[in-house]
Amino acid sequence: MQWYFVALLLTFLTSSQGILTTLSQSNGKYLYDYATVPFLAEVFKLVLSGLLVWRECQISPSTRMTTEWKSVRLYVVPSIIYLIHNNVQFATLTYVDASTYQIMGNLKIVTTGILFRLFLRRRLSNLQWMAIILLAVGTTTSQVKGCGEASCDSLFAAPIQGYMLGAVSACLSALAGVYTEFLMKKNNDSLYWQNVQLYTGGYENGSWWQRLFNGYSITTWMVVLNLGSTGLLVSWLMKYADNIVKVYATSMAMLLTMVWSVYLFSFKPTLQLFLGIIICMMSLHMYFAPPNMLLDLPTQVRAASESLKEVTVERRTDS
Amino acid sequence: MQWYFVALLLTFLTSSQGILTTLSQSNGKYLYDYATVPFLAEVFKLVLSGLLVWRECQISPSTRMTTEWKSVRLYVVPSIIYLIHNNVQFATLTYVDASTYQIMGNLKIVTTGILFRLFLRRRLSNLQWMAIILLAVGTTTSQVKGCGEASCDSLFAAPIQGYMLGAVSACLSALAGVYTEFLMKKNNDSLYWQNVQLYTGGYENGSWWQRLFNGYSITTWMVVLNLGSTGLLVSWLMKYADNIVKVYATSMAMLLTMVWSVYLFSFKPTLQLFLGIIICMMSLHMYFAPPNMLLDLPTQVRAASESLKEVTVERRTDS
Repeated sequence: MQWYFVALLLTFLTSSQGILTTLSQSNGKYLYDYATVPFLAEVFKLVLSGLLVWRECQISPSTRMTTEWKSVRLYVVPSIIYLIHNNVQFATLTYVDASTYQIMGNLKIVTTGILFRLFLRRRLSNLQWMAIILLAVGTTTSQVKGCGEASCDSLFAAPIQGYMLGAVSACLSALAGVYTEFLMKKNNDSLYWQNVQLYTGGYENGSWWQRLFNGYSITTWMVVLNLGSTGLLVSWLMKYADNIVKVYATSMAMLLTMVWSVYLFSFKPTLQLFLGIIICMMSLHMYFAPPNMLLDLPTQVRAASESLKEVTVERRTDS
Repeated sequence: MQWYFVALLLTFLTSSQGILTTLSQSNGKYLYDYATVPFLAEVFKLVLSGLLVWRECQISPSTRMTTEWKSVRLYVVPSIIYLIHNNVQFATLTYVDASTYQIMGNLKIVTTGILFRLFLRRRLSNLQWMAIILLAVGTTTSQVKGCGEASCDSLFAAPIQGYMLGAVSACLSALAGVYTEFLMKKNNDSLYWQNVQLYTGGYENGSWWQRLFNGYSITTWMVVLNLGSTGLLVSWLMKYADNIVKVYATSMAMLLTMVWSVYLFSFKPTLQLFLGIIICMMSLHMYFAPPNMLLDLPTQVRAASESLKEVTVERRTDS
């Protein structure tokens, strides 16, 4: 499977997440306990990955599965980082309002780039760095409150602790992503076996069981399925593509959700949404287009840069 | 003189134009007739260019001056285009409000790029096209009305004629710029002689004389001097650099004016101004940075792209 096909699928599924969640409400209220949804999605991912590992072992007995404790224990790290992240997120929201919080969330794009470079030691060209900054700027632009919208005086008027916690949150979120990529790529283990290890963590709070399935509708089940599938697609991308591809897919999904909302929920489109979309499109092209498509390089340069590209592709499939 | 030094000077002078104009008011009112300012600036440019031609002829009798009617008559074309443009501008403002008008003005950046390609047959790489679009997006972003600002419901609610006239206006403005560049570069005539021809046009309405100097202060004279100097710098850029350099200088000046206003007139800085500045900075770097600074090209590519750059520079000084 090509990585861009998976990224495209992730974009569509992620963008439909918000829409499905809204559609699963009745008169603006949840008839079910929303906290059970991510939990069920985790169960779905674990069960599906488990079945796939089992089938893979049936078909080829040589399926690569590292079962040493030294390796298995590392898979709990992303869950721990996410647990800390969730607490920091909660603390941040006591200092800043929801709009500022949403805008600060875009910082994650830049911190992912930085940790991707520092932790995974992946080189990015100047143009790719610029593309990453533009992606963050573009998503932020689309979220700028238009005139007439309520509660905007409070934007960036929060105490300094709020911003510092926001920055910590962006770093933790990026760290979890980058660490997951490291786990997925560190050996040639079966993707499904890695998934099983990854999804076994994170069952800290089991009190949801009693409220489970209460008020569930067909749409609620679609939300669960959607959340589970996007999780599996992210794992796939972490192994066969990288964190940056994931960041692009989720950012584009955010914009796509806003476009869908215009048609489905008669959300008023703003100039800044339009500008944000153009900026992110440019960023996408800048990051992924081959150099000879971006610049008019002379023929010998073109040949050399194409051979360079082949080398990069070979190295990617190697690892 | 290096073109980027001239472009930087133009940026600073243009950005101080709005500031000086505001400072020349007394209690928010003009004590003088503002219409006399551009007129005096034209006179300043003409007189200075005349003196410089005269001095140049004294120093070297071989100063290149084409005086054939066939060539001289072409210099009236930019004035005619600007005259039509001013009328179209006036008609546009009867359909759209000032905010929409300002936002539509950014279209000029893109039309300049298109006419630059079509009329002057200058090639731009894909990355440079993206940079031009991003420049327009960046300046537009900085102008997005923040929440709490008045009169924003009317944004993009004007009749279709308003937008069509806005597009015509953007094309005319770009055409005047591109035609001036064509005139300045079509032969090796003295810049000052070309300026004299350029500034002789455009004295359609002489009724200002009577109101001239009425209520002029030191600041008013500075506005005149500033407007005259920026005109001369633009001419220089048209001959030795190009329209795109001018567009970058004036766009950056617009942003710089907004930054200055924050300090001088306690203008409230918006998130969109900050985002707009980042986008325009990225665009500037994308457009002008050499390929080997933007992309990690292998050594042989780097050498080839450097030799390519030398060829471009040589061709530029040739023409």
